[in-house]
Amino acid sequence: MADPIITLTTDFGEAAPFVAAMKGVILGINPAARVIDLSHQIPGQDLRFADFFLAHALPCFPPGVLHVVVVDPGVGTDRKLLYVEVDGHRLLVPDNGCWTEMARGALQPAVVRWLADPRYWRQPVSQTFHGRDILAPVAAHLSLGLNPELLGPLVSDWIRLDPLTPRIDPAARQVIGEVVFADSFGNLITNVPSQALEDIGGPPWDIRLEGQLIPRWVRTYGDAEPGAVVALVASSGTLEIAVVQGSAAAKLQAGVGAQVTIRAGG
Amino acid sequence: MADPIITLTTDFGEAAPFVAAMKGVILGINPAARVIDLSHQIPGQDLRFADFFLAHALPCFPPGVLHVVVVDPGVGTDRKLLYVEVDGHRLLVPDNGCWTEMARGALQPAVVRWLADPRYWRQPVSQTFHGRDILAPVAAHLSLGLNPELLGPLVSDWIRLDPLTPRIDPAARQVIGEVVFADSFGNLITNVPSQALEDIGGPPWDIRLEGQLIPRWVRTYGDAEPGAVVALVASSGTLEIAVVQGSAAAKLQAGVGAQVTIRAGG
Amino acid sequence: MADPIITLTTDFGEAAPFVAAMKGVILGINPAARVIDLSHQIPGQDLRFADFFLAHALPCFPPGVLHVVVVDPGVGTDRKLLYVEVDGHRLLVPDNGCWTEMARGALQPAVVRWLADPRYWRQPVSQTFHGRDILAPVAAHLSLGLNPELLGPLVSDWIRLDPLTPRIDPAARQVIGEVVFADSFGNLITNVPSQALEDIGGPPWDIRLEGQLIPRWVRTYGDAEPGAVVALVASSGTLEIAVVQGSAAAKLQAGVGAQVTIRAGG
Repeated sequence: MADPIITLTTDFGEAAPFVAAMKGVILGINPAARVIDLSHQIPGQDLRFADFFLAHALPCFPPGVLHVVVVDPGVGTDRKLLYVEVDGHRLLVPDNGCWTEMARGALQPAVVRWLADPRYWRQPVSQTFHGRDILAPVAAHLSLGLNPELLGPLVSDWIRLDPLTPRIDPAARQVIGEVVFADSFGNLITNVPSQALEDIGGPPWDIRLEGQLIPRWVRTYGDAEPGAVVALVASSGTLEIAVVQGSAAAKLQAGVGAQVTIRAGG
Repeated sequence: MADPIITLTTDFGEAAPFVAAMKGVILGINPAARVIDLSHQIPGQDLRFADFFLAHALPCFPPGVLHVVVVDPGVGTDRKLLYVEVDGHRLLVPDNGCWTEMARGALQPAVVRWLADPRYWRQPVSQTFHGRDILAPVAAHLSLGLNPELLGPLVSDWIRLDPLTPRIDPAARQVIGEVVFADSFGNLITNVPSQALEDIGGPPWDIRLEGQLIPRWVRTYGDAEPGAVVALVASSGTLEIAVVQGSAAAKLQAGVGAQVTIRAGG
Repeated sequence: MADPIITLTTDFGEAAPFVAAMKGVILGINPAARVIDLSHQIPGQDLRFADFFLAHALPCFPPGVLHVVVVDPGVGTDRKLLYVEVDGHRLLVPDNGCWTEMARGALQPAVVRWLADPRYWRQPVSQTFHGRDILAPVAAHLSLGLNPELLGPLVSDWIRLDPLTPRIDPAARQVIGEVVFADSFGNLITNVPSQALEDIGGPPWDIRLEGQLIPRWVRTYGDAEPGAVVALVASSGTLEIAVVQGSAAAKLQAGVGAQVTIRAGG
């Protein structure tokens, strides 16, 4: 059997010693653990970003992997730390909504425990770095086979971010959504499922980003000439606005939160 | 025997969930695979950069390692995806020339297959993320021992970037080359092999970057005082222009493509 | 027994092929080695930064792990490369002071060897990339069980950075220290141990950063409202100046080297 896997997702960047400290703590408890970086470039304390990231990355992993997430503006306050099982994925997260989409997309209700037993923590516990002092050691103990029931009691309520749901109006044959992610190429990914476009009828669609018409619908970037502004279905299955071999974010001066409107018909 | 190794080189950056998704797909198929990051900081869709990167990194690896490369401006078009064996190194790459130098420097002709059999792909295959949906799962299956012959047919032609060959003129005792890489320190690495400098005679050499005289020849950075503009042999074996404890790119206002001229004699 | 671990800390960034080349060299010698990235974002040739990073990261690791550090402005000169054992941690470092704090905080005197035997190096050795040509292969050989005595002779002297010690004046009930690290959130971490604040008496304390009063003392960030300028004990155990959900570095226009003064009493 392969050695257990622990992934790390943080907003620490890589210049500070924080990520390295977490890796050391994990390997000190379970030298056989395989620690895998998902990202340390989550923008500081950006829970929406973390939520999008986790919802698009974690479902690709096999069940059983432990995912440690440290985006934690409330560190040291009375916010809880949680152990979560959701569709077989196992998360260690602050109770701040950073896994809202994971829970919403799940087939089974999540099982959630409050990390209450300090026996599995590093001592002394600092007030500002629970990633190193609580989440990393708990992950390492779990990777050794610790029964999660020993971590703390079940909880039935936890923080959820407000949903970013597009407004679909079949009568008006219209969807209004928003950009929820901009990747490093400047592609703008919205919260409008491609299914919603089919539901309102069309093609053709009139697609506008903050009022600016998106002139072309393509299957993939290479279907239009460099510099063309295009709409397509993102790899996440939602509507995406892109500039071929360029940046839609720069060219359209738009980012997360920009409104996208789609109307079916000519 | 050690568990199989799969390396990842992309232009995705680490903020987006794309790299994490690929790691999840690989581990879902082969939980024992060891996934190693080479770089996710290749500039977006920069094939020349990827080509330089791979030519200077992959030959350091032992044979048999699987190298997945996702710098793929043509994703979703009819550009092929390839499985390559070159001097024992195994690559999974888009057919866009990103491995030109690897092939050119090889002792044996490359064996190249077109990834044509969707049995080894993730379904459904998106139009914009073949790294996750084709290259990652194929790499994982290969790491489990899949016979590459099952991936698809041999191909005998593939895209090559135009060579960036310096012009060597032994009669005029002159070489004209160019900067092909600038590292994070601002060191400017050229395409002029140190052997070419010996071939035209000298030292001394008159070395100029875009017309600016490079006044000092050194063995290593620390051989001159901080701030000195120097020429030396890079760790890649080619001519490098540097500023000691500073940035040649900034000080000389030069980057990739800048012309370097070397004349032998006084 | 778990496979041996080799960590990498460099100032190379991830765009250049240097880190990847080191990983390849290690795996070529010991395919079972587990290579773990600590950071490749150490600012170029910044020995103070590397020293802080290592002192706060390496003690979290279990003994026996091999830590390779390449922050090496003197590469190719007659500066030595060292194998260090300090409190069970094993380092491969240039002799430039980058591990000063590790040695200062140690319970046992360090055992230090000069890497003098080229049998364990990659050939040919370049003048500008000893990370790839000396440190990586030596680490790989050590991970296979090589006796460190074979690397080269013991040395009893090595470079140390000047200590950044705060001035504690119990009579005046005052401490004067400085900012030694700014993390990616803009938190400013000083060299003043929390114990020193207790030693001069208080609370209350009058805390000033470059003359600016820090108005609040908190246990953790979330104890004050967003935007508040606060002082607290950092996860490293020293005084930290922060802005809640903001950047103290930006708001107070201060960074590494800024003076912090603490006086006890009203």
